[in-house]
Amino acid sequence: MSVRAGIIVTGTEVLTGRITDRNGPWISERLEEQGVDVAHIITVGDRPDDLEAALRFLASEGMALIVTSGGLGPTADDLTAEIVGRFAGRGLVLDKEMEEKIAAILRRFARRYSFDPEAMREANRKQALVPEGAIPIDPAGTAPGLVVPADGTVVVVLPGPPRELHALWPRALETEPVRSVLARADSYETTTLRMFGIPESELAKTLREIDDQIDLSPLEITTCLRQAELVVDIRHPPEDEALSNRVIDAIADRHGRFVFSRDGESIDNQVAELLEGHRIGLAESSTGGLLAARLTDRPGASAHLAGSVVAYSDDAKIELLGVPADLIAEHGAVSPQVADAMADGALARFDADIAFAITGIAGPDGGTDEKPVGYVCFCAKQADGRALARDPVLPGSRADVRDRSVAVAMHMLRVLLRGEEPPL
Amino acid sequence: MSVRAGIIVTGTEVLTGRITDRNGPWISERLEEQGVDVAHIITVGDRPDDLEAALRFLASEGMALIVTSGGLGPTADDLTAEIVGRFAGRGLVLDKEMEEKIAAILRRFARRYSFDPEAMREANRKQALVPEGAIPIDPAGTAPGLVVPADGTVVVVLPGPPRELHALWPRALETEPVRSVLARADSYETTTLRMFGIPESELAKTLREIDDQIDLSPLEITTCLRQAELVVDIRHPPEDEALSNRVIDAIADRHGRFVFSRDGESIDNQVAELLEGHRIGLAESSTGGLLAARLTDRPGASAHLAGSVVAYSDDAKIELLGVPADLIAEHGAVSPQVADAMADGALARFDADIAFAITGIAGPDGGTDEKPVGYVCFCAKQADGRALARDPVLPGSRADVRDRSVAVAMHMLRVLLRGEEPPL
Repeated sequence: MSVRAGIIVTGTEVLTGRITDRNGPWISERLEEQGVDVAHIITVGDRPDDLEAALRFLASEGMALIVTSGGLGPTADDLTAEIVGRFAGRGLVLDKEMEEKIAAILRRFARRYSFDPEAMREANRKQALVPEGAIPIDPAGTAPGLVVPADGTVVVVLPGPPRELHALWPRALETEPVRSVLARADSYETTTLRMFGIPESELAKTLREIDDQIDLSPLEITTCLRQAELVVDIRHPPEDEALSNRVIDAIADRHGRFVFSRDGESIDNQVAELLEGHRIGLAESSTGGLLAARLTDRPGASAHLAGSVVAYSDDAKIELLGVPADLIAEHGAVSPQVADAMADGALARFDADIAFAITGIAGPDGGTDEKPVGYVCFCAKQADGRALARDPVLPGSRADVRDRSVAVAMHMLRVLLRGEEPPL
Repeated sequence: MSVRAGIIVTGTEVLTGRITDRNGPWISERLEEQGVDVAHIITVGDRPDDLEAALRFLASEGMALIVTSGGLGPTADDLTAEIVGRFAGRGLVLDKEMEEKIAAILRRFARRYSFDPEAMREANRKQALVPEGAIPIDPAGTAPGLVVPADGTVVVVLPGPPRELHALWPRALETEPVRSVLARADSYETTTLRMFGIPESELAKTLREIDDQIDLSPLEITTCLRQAELVVDIRHPPEDEALSNRVIDAIADRHGRFVFSRDGESIDNQVAELLEGHRIGLAESSTGGLLAARLTDRPGASAHLAGSVVAYSDDAKIELLGVPADLIAEHGAVSPQVADAMADGALARFDADIAFAITGIAGPDGGTDEKPVGYVCFCAKQADGRALARDPVLPGSRADVRDRSVAVAMHMLRVLLRGEEPPL
């Protein structure tokens, strides 16, 4: 039997776009791991009626589980516990044990920051008010979570700060009402194929052709563009793994050199593995440190990354990377020649055996007819002389050009280190 | 009269958390600019029934306007036009003019990428199918937008790729059905106060105290933590500007040194302005280029940023920044002494008059009792000798520690350049 769930993210700051919600997607991934189908993620502001309407909508659509995030803080606009209680027909009562737990946490916190502990305690007493009969979940910050059984559904109420939400999630899964919902969920699997350098329409045509030959109806296939990659997700019941593999083989037969991952492994993982035993140095201009930030996003990057020279000014290119001033004068700071010299500089300065250099025009100004905004020169180079260079014009805004540049760089590194034929 | 709107973001890849939605927040901000109250943002997958349920829910909640994003692509899971048509009681018809426009766009595209133009055209013919009586909006990519009048509401259907959505938005606003909804919207204003270094509970207490003295009911005040900043939004009708200002004054009276922006101006803007006429060089270890990426996020950064040395290895700190090897041996690579020497190195190597250095333990490994994960040493230094140094232990995951480090750096730069008393 399929178990469906809805997620409600609360907060005017999320609704108005002032902050980007990461909780909805995170909860969705966790539910998917449990075999639960997420049907809706609803963002509401701090207006009680809108939250209650969202709860009623999800219940009416047959959601066995509703997970909320946010609205458990100390300020007056934090109303989730009260509204969920009202929705479930349960009034608020003070949980004395929880009140004492929160007080103990706040005493530590107040000492550390030297703010008035009594003021904090007062502001947070409200956080110990829970719907009658709800199961409280111990806080990771100061806000406890709640599991609230309601008519035909179970509401899991979690705090908004991602760290706290992540900490409370496994505790919510252990409660009896949540366990009994999850026991009814189907299991199924998702295989993810990742491609680079091919338009979505080309893949759509391929999928139609495959569909003409094989009955794909047991599968749910979704495709999406993500960071210049085309990601194909194939969801299948465990017994249809062979069918899923046939589809993957058929795509790989037609578009092999565009497929860089058949098991969902990210380009970040692949590049990190390929860099094992190497020492890489970077030279960045238009990406301004984004490639270095991407490579150091993962723990353990220091094993292969020596560093990056973000040479934004011409002086920095000359002084810190040893790019000849003549070369910049002759070809311009954004040119394949300068990218090549930057890569040489990174090899030398970082005593590296592989280097990657990027120089480009991210915009919105600085473009010319010959070198428009989006023109970016890339050079990947190994100390033994193997190299790969490209100078495409990338579409989009300044942020798009910078982000796509990092994606291109990651894939060029993969191609060079694997010794593959470049897709484009 | 208040006009309320709902937003529907479609796509299994968004619902399952594989990609982060930026369209919902973006549309929400645009609607807010038009004086429209956004009540709900709903994310749905590619299941037709869930999209239709969301449309019916929003209509039943009295939304005068519903904006959808996504589901207009060439693949079979792109069904938005059809479902919105069904919701509005309008069947699909082929828009011949639109078909020709899309064909012309695709011919250019196909030439550029040397894929089969007929395959692309076939895949995209479906994009010229529009609900009868709907107003088509010319595409920016290959997907046209739609304005679909329905019973009691107007549905604006936009494509998912952000660049296309942004391009089509102003065109949608110009259509008659949308204009007549917007003509009914109230105007109101939002003042934003930004604070750094103060916990939310302290501000909650202050707001309660102010509420005891002044009637705040005409205002909608929301507070949120964002990138280590506390953001206070005060929404008010135009006639209540004086009241809004009284609240801001009362907050500033109590917490003046924590308030860095009274007009919503971001720390990025402030730092960029303060850096005018300066030349800054950076030296980053644990942030791995994120500070440079942040400063170069804005166009025109080359006017004041020379560059950054991302010195991830000790060798790079020694070779590229001139940090004495002895100093690293004596105090460790993560120490106030090394941060100070990195700043000196950045001043010298970039010939800068201000430098910022960061070295820390981002985790998850590498922490000790003395220097736990999250321990980060910061040093801001001017060529004339003025300096500001801090070495806090920042909470959270590796990503949190890195992001917070960049926030701390931005605020330290602001404090040093303004000659202010540091808040902490």
